[in-house]
Amino acid sequence: MEQIAPPVLVVGWAPDGALRILDQRRLPAALEMRDLHTVDEVADAIRTLAVRGAPAIGVAAAIGLAAATRGRAAADIEAAAATLRSTRPTAVNLGWALDRMLAVARAHATAPAPARDQALRDEAERIRAEDAAMCRAIGELGAPLIEDGMRVLTHCNAGALATAGIGTALAPVYVAHARGARVQVWADETRPLLQGARLTAWELAQAGIPVTVLADNMAASLMARGEVDLVLVGADRIAANGDTANKVGTYGLAVLAKHHGIPFVVCAPWSTVDPRTPDGAAIVIEQRAADEVTHLAGTRVAAEGAATYNPAFDVTPHTLITRIVTDRGVFAPPYVLGPNPDVLPPPV
Amino acid sequence: MEQIAPPVLVVGWAPDGALRILDQRRLPAALEMRDLHTVDEVADAIRTLAVRGAPAIGVAAAIGLAAATRGRAAADIEAAAATLRSTRPTAVNLGWALDRMLAVARAHATAPAPARDQALRDEAERIRAEDAAMCRAIGELGAPLIEDGMRVLTHCNAGALATAGIGTALAPVYVAHARGARVQVWADETRPLLQGARLTAWELAQAGIPVTVLADNMAASLMARGEVDLVLVGADRIAANGDTANKVGTYGLAVLAKHHGIPFVVCAPWSTVDPRTPDGAAIVIEQRAADEVTHLAGTRVAAEGAATYNPAFDVTPHTLITRIVTDRGVFAPPYVLGPNPDVLPPPV
Repeated sequence: MEQIAPPVLVVGWAPDGALRILDQRRLPAALEMRDLHTVDEVADAIRTLAVRGAPAIGVAAAIGLAAATRGRAAADIEAAAATLRSTRPTAVNLGWALDRMLAVARAHATAPAPARDQALRDEAERIRAEDAAMCRAIGELGAPLIEDGMRVLTHCNAGALATAGIGTALAPVYVAHARGARVQVWADETRPLLQGARLTAWELAQAGIPVTVLADNMAASLMARGEVDLVLVGADRIAANGDTANKVGTYGLAVLAKHHGIPFVVCAPWSTVDPRTPDGAAIVIEQRAADEVTHLAGTRVAAEGAATYNPAFDVTPHTLITRIVTDRGVFAPPYVLGPNPDVLPPPV
Repeated sequence: MEQIAPPVLVVGWAPDGALRILDQRRLPAALEMRDLHTVDEVADAIRTLAVRGAPAIGVAAAIGLAAATRGRAAADIEAAAATLRSTRPTAVNLGWALDRMLAVARAHATAPAPARDQALRDEAERIRAEDAAMCRAIGELGAPLIEDGMRVLTHCNAGALATAGIGTALAPVYVAHARGARVQVWADETRPLLQGARLTAWELAQAGIPVTVLADNMAASLMARGEVDLVLVGADRIAANGDTANKVGTYGLAVLAKHHGIPFVVCAPWSTVDPRTPDGAAIVIEQRAADEVTHLAGTRVAAEGAATYNPAFDVTPHTLITRIVTDRGVFAPPYVLGPNPDVLPPPV
């Protein structure tokens, strides 16, 4: 299979074995790579969103743990894992990657330090490579949905910058583009944190894929003009019935897509599916700080005296979702994704 | 009838006969009044949105024309009107107010300049007073739609700050509030220029009406939670069949309101109705500058290399509009608002 590289290294290894990341806090103004050698540096990078996106965070924690604990005592590895785990307590991939690393460390409790260090590097590299392969699988399975000349609308950033590979929602775009399809992307800017304008637009422009930024409230007008052929979004969590939690604004797009007869497709790693969550009503939505809405680039824009509403996510009911593309298959309604994650429904 | 005053002077006369405006570009950080004496100052204020909102623009153009052409030749008045007319091509009130002013000027072509100047001042003051009365009429006719305890969602600013009175979309809110109804407002921040966060939130907070700001993409989530009872928006232009051009994002809200079974009501002066425009397809949508989307508070937020889509307005088809509240009556579907504006359909 041909190589389809992400437009930039997001998370990987430095030549000296350190964790190398793209510092996304500086984007799009500056492209700054950073090599992190200590647990505190890695924890700080995750906590401050220098590295973000659930898959990329898991990979960064695994490589960071391997890099920062070389030659150290077993107790130091346990302490390092605890420190990293505490940086983003709700990030499922983070805990899952650290559990895998700790299992390897414990299995090598009596081995010489160099052998144990090598085993940790190998496990971290497996986690990285599996993540890249997961992205590629989503891309391969989703690419047939993208026909030559299509105009694809996306929301937030579920691209290469959120993973160690070519992204999740954007993976089908990268694969279709690499195979010669002319594909054009509409990127919702995605208030309040502007991941679409800052990150999705940046990575697609880097990759030479035509991308146009719009304010979130302009998507409906584009659809009415017949200029959107497909909506592709990521997912933070998918319930067993297909109800999907994703960046706030996703649900509104799904309603608009339905109204205009436009396919609405969720692309996410199978690990995002939570078979123990029966439906969207069981998903708790985090409310974030008011100043994300009241301030922009450090300047107050909202009037004093007004309250704010700032949910991080919304839930799109399965009835509005045309397909769910995962690395294990493409699913069509009715979605039956649980309760046993090892018993998969037949992919489409 | 009891007085219901707007929370601040938006557009009126300075003691020396100049046009006095509240400079809305400075809100909510600063409350700055400006007195404008020349056609270029007035045109610049309209073009740069120091004064904005179709009704306020019409009043500003009328007062500005009267103020800036005192003692000037008839040809200068014609040229001044042409300059002012070119500032905001989609604003129908602007052309209508200028037509009234020009008719007065032409009727006084052979009169002494002082008499003509006085006639122009009188006409401009009539336009201002009629605008304030128009707002109040919309408020009175729309207030019965607002029941005690209702949560009203609005977009952009069609409030006092857009008029010489208590606003259009917000007029029913001000009247219901003045009569003792508990009403709470959800204000879409309204990217790219944030008129909701900056202006609607500001004027409602000034008036002591509870207001909560949200990013535009969060409205759908509020509706899904059952927390929106009514959507009230203004209009920049209403076609004869009820199709309505308003701030971009309005159309998406109308689709969302329909999906959730929430009444969607347009409140606008009768002068916004353009009987010569048969339907929304005939309305030209102004595209605005890219930097409104790519920059925020002077800082670049969108990646270089991305294009932008930045329409000023979108068109909401009449099929999504529950009621149109004007100062001449409340209209229900099917809307037959033309072709003769003097022959009104029976109001509801």
